[in-house]
Amino acid sequence: MRTLYHYPLCPFSRKVRIVLAEKKLEFDERIEKAWERRDEFLELSPGGDLPVLVEQNGTIFGDATAICEYLDETHRDSPLLPAEPEARAEVRRLVGWFDRKFHDEVTRNLVDEKVTKRLTTVKGAPDSRAIRAGFAHIHQHLEYIAWLTERRTWLAGGYFTLADAAAAAQISCIDYIGDVPWDRHPGAKEWYAMVKSRPSFRLLLADHVPGVPPPKHYADLDF
Amino acid sequence: MRTLYHYPLCPFSRKVRIVLAEKKLEFDERIEKAWERRDEFLELSPGGDLPVLVEQNGTIFGDATAICEYLDETHRDSPLLPAEPEARAEVRRLVGWFDRKFHDEVTRNLVDEKVTKRLTTVKGAPDSRAIRAGFAHIHQHLEYIAWLTERRTWLAGGYFTLADAAAAAQISCIDYIGDVPWDRHPGAKEWYAMVKSRPSFRLLLADHVPGVPPPKHYADLDF
Repeated sequence: MRTLYHYPLCPFSRKVRIVLAEKKLEFDERIEKAWERRDEFLELSPGGDLPVLVEQNGTIFGDATAICEYLDETHRDSPLLPAEPEARAEVRRLVGWFDRKFHDEVTRNLVDEKVTKRLTTVKGAPDSRAIRAGFAHIHQHLEYIAWLTERRTWLAGGYFTLADAAAAAQISCIDYIGDVPWDRHPGAKEWYAMVKSRPSFRLLLADHVPGVPPPKHYADLDF
Repeated sequence: MRTLYHYPLCPFSRKVRIVLAEKKLEFDERIEKAWERRDEFLELSPGGDLPVLVEQNGTIFGDATAICEYLDETHRDSPLLPAEPEARAEVRRLVGWFDRKFHDEVTRNLVDEKVTKRLTTVKGAPDSRAIRAGFAHIHQHLEYIAWLTERRTWLAGGYFTLADAAAAAQISCIDYIGDVPWDRHPGAKEWYAMVKSRPSFRLLLADHVPGVPPPKHYADLDF
C-alpha cells in the first residue's frame, strides 16, 4: 500500500493529502512528528522534512511540490494542471505564492508560533511580534483570493488545480487554529466553502491534533 | 524582445537567468530594486516579487519555479528535466531542497542579513544570531552536494538539470559575498567548478552590485 508520512498541521502535507484524494488514490496515513527526528524517518527523508510518500513499489518521494507534480503526471484523470504551458505557469505561480509567500507571511507566523513551538521541543515562548505580523498579512492574501475568484471560478481558472490545493492547504491550517477572519472576507469565504465541500477535503476536516482541538466551525460546511 | 526583471543577489532571479542561458534564449535584463516597489513593477508582479519574465508577446510570468518549468516545457532542446516521472520527481525534490531549505537556512541568513538589509530600506542592524546560523548550516548542504556528486555526475543524475540550476543559484549568491568555505568542501567545490565553466554561468560571473564588490575568486574558474 502507498504510505504518506505527514503531520496534520503541516500545510505541505495537507497539499499532498488533497491531491491524493482528488486523484482517488488509496493510501495509508502515518502521522510523523518530524521534530523527533526518528532514525527510520530520516532514512526516508535526508532533511527530516514532511511530507514523504512511499509508493507501492517502495520508491520514496520527498518535497510536496515534487510529489504533487509526480502524482499529476502519473495519474491523468482529474488533471490538476491544465494542458497549455502558459496556463500551467499561472497555476504554478499561484502554488509558489501560497507555498512560499502565504506560508512565510502567515502560516509560519501563526501556526508555528502559536502551536508548533508548544508541541515540539523548540525552546521559547511564542513571538508576539511574529503573531502580529501574521494577523496583519492574512488580509491581503484573502483579498487576493477574492480578487482572483471574482474573475475565475477557481484560483487559476475554470477548474480546481494545484493552486487551489496549495492555498487550501495553508488556509485550512490557519482555520484549524481559528485565526481566519472570515467575517471580513466574504469572497475568500465563498471560495473556501467550495473547497470544503469537495470529497477530497473530508480527510482534512476530520483532523484532530491531541491537545489542540479545532474550533467548531472548522469541519462545518456551513461556517 | 523577452525581458527579465531581476536583481543580481536574488537567488531565484539567478535560477531563471541560468535556465534562459542554458536554453540559449536571448533576453534583456532589467535590474529591479523590488524593495522600492515601483508602480510599474507592481503592475507586472502583484506581490512585488522577483523574478518576472515578460515574453515577446507581452505575456507576464512570475515565480521562478513556474518560469523555469514553462521554459523547459516550451523549449525542448537541452531539457532540464528528465522524461521519466520518477526522475523528474527527484530533480524537483532537489529544486525544493535548495529553493526552500538552503535558502531559508543559509542564503536568507547570510545574504539578506549582511547585504540586503544594508542596501534596502529595511531597518535594523544585521542579526548576528542569524549570521551564525547561516554559517552553521552551510556545511551540511555542501556535504550533501558532495554526497550526491559522488554517486552522480550532476546533482540529480547524468546531466545538468533544474536541480543544479537551483543549487548553483543559491550558492553563487553566497560565493558573491565570499562566504562559501570551499577549502573544507572539495567535493562540492568540484561540482561548482563544473557549473562555473558552463557558458550559461558567464552572465552571473560578470555581476557587480554597486557598493558590494565580489571577492576576486568569484569570477575565477580556477578558484
